[in-house]
Amino acid sequence: MEKCRVVFSGSGGQGVITAAIILAEAAVLFENLNAVQSQSYGAEARGGATRSDIIISDSAIHYPKVIQPNVLVCLTQDAYNKFYQVIRPGGLLIADTRYVKTGKKVDAQQKEIAMFETIMDRIGKPIAFNICMLGVVISLTELVKPESIMKVLERRIPADFLDMNRTALDIGIKLGEAALT
Amino acid sequence: MEKCRVVFSGSGGQGVITAAIILAEAAVLFENLNAVQSQSYGAEARGGATRSDIIISDSAIHYPKVIQPNVLVCLTQDAYNKFYQVIRPGGLLIADTRYVKTGKKVDAQQKEIAMFETIMDRIGKPIAFNICMLGVVISLTELVKPESIMKVLERRIPADFLDMNRTALDIGIKLGEAALT
Repeated sequence: MEKCRVVFSGSGGQGVITAAIILAEAAVLFENLNAVQSQSYGAEARGGATRSDIIISDSAIHYPKVIQPNVLVCLTQDAYNKFYQVIRPGGLLIADTRYVKTGKKVDAQQKEIAMFETIMDRIGKPIAFNICMLGVVISLTELVKPESIMKVLERRIPADFLDMNRTALDIGIKLGEAALT
Repeated sequence: MEKCRVVFSGSGGQGVITAAIILAEAAVLFENLNAVQSQSYGAEARGGATRSDIIISDSAIHYPKVIQPNVLVCLTQDAYNKFYQVIRPGGLLIADTRYVKTGKKVDAQQKEIAMFETIMDRIGKPIAFNICMLGVVISLTELVKPESIMKVLERRIPADFLDMNRTALDIGIKLGEAALT
């Protein structure tokens, strides 16, 4: 793998920080990789778009801040408008169809994926939207295995909610597979 | 304030990452400060001691990694043994009496505080141990105001659990005040 730099962006309640921590823990605890996960907050954080960074590598990570992500996820229009420019040339930009109109020109693949709508259709509430997003990401990138994500969720989430999260992860994986073709 | 570098360390389920995110959000959203919050995981993370870093500053933060913290909290013996040496000269090292025997020589103040025991006495279960720890930290350092922590908790925690968390925060603040004298 070498090194993969990932940024999840969105608004406050969408769970992007939690998703980033879950991805980092899955990589470290169950795939024998190294990871750094961080949030930088400043004046702009008070404005709206939240961002959470993850670096995953099979060797030591020296500089923990993501400058140009290989993978950028934008869950709101604000996040897209603010961050689309940082995508690494040749990278992958994933946007949610419900909240984001893409259309900026970037030197990367852009995929609009109906994560929010599918979760609302299938689960009826948006609480596992961030886990669905993780499913899309791991399906398109193969960064970590779905089982590794599930093992982290088993450690963090009450048993009552595990099924719903597994469903959301599976929905995301299928949406990712569909977007590959 | 200039800049304060903080490290929370402990074992997996103690909530040190959550506490770090709450502290960073309190500083940014309600005290008009800047903050960076990060976790680095590597081979050693699989061993046991978890560490979560926060930098809080009234100006921009350029390098997000904490090398020598001004404030180091150790909630387990493993965490203490692994991290005590990184404390900044003149800094403040806070350890939990139940889990940690201090005794290493450091060029910093060491305070052993009965956080776990007091929480078990007063609340009967350890779930808000991390919030009690935050109370101790803000009481000893005045990094952010208790109201700012509570405002973050109000955004994150179901109403049913707010009272317990407020109690845990207050217990921590009193334990910190007692340790000052």
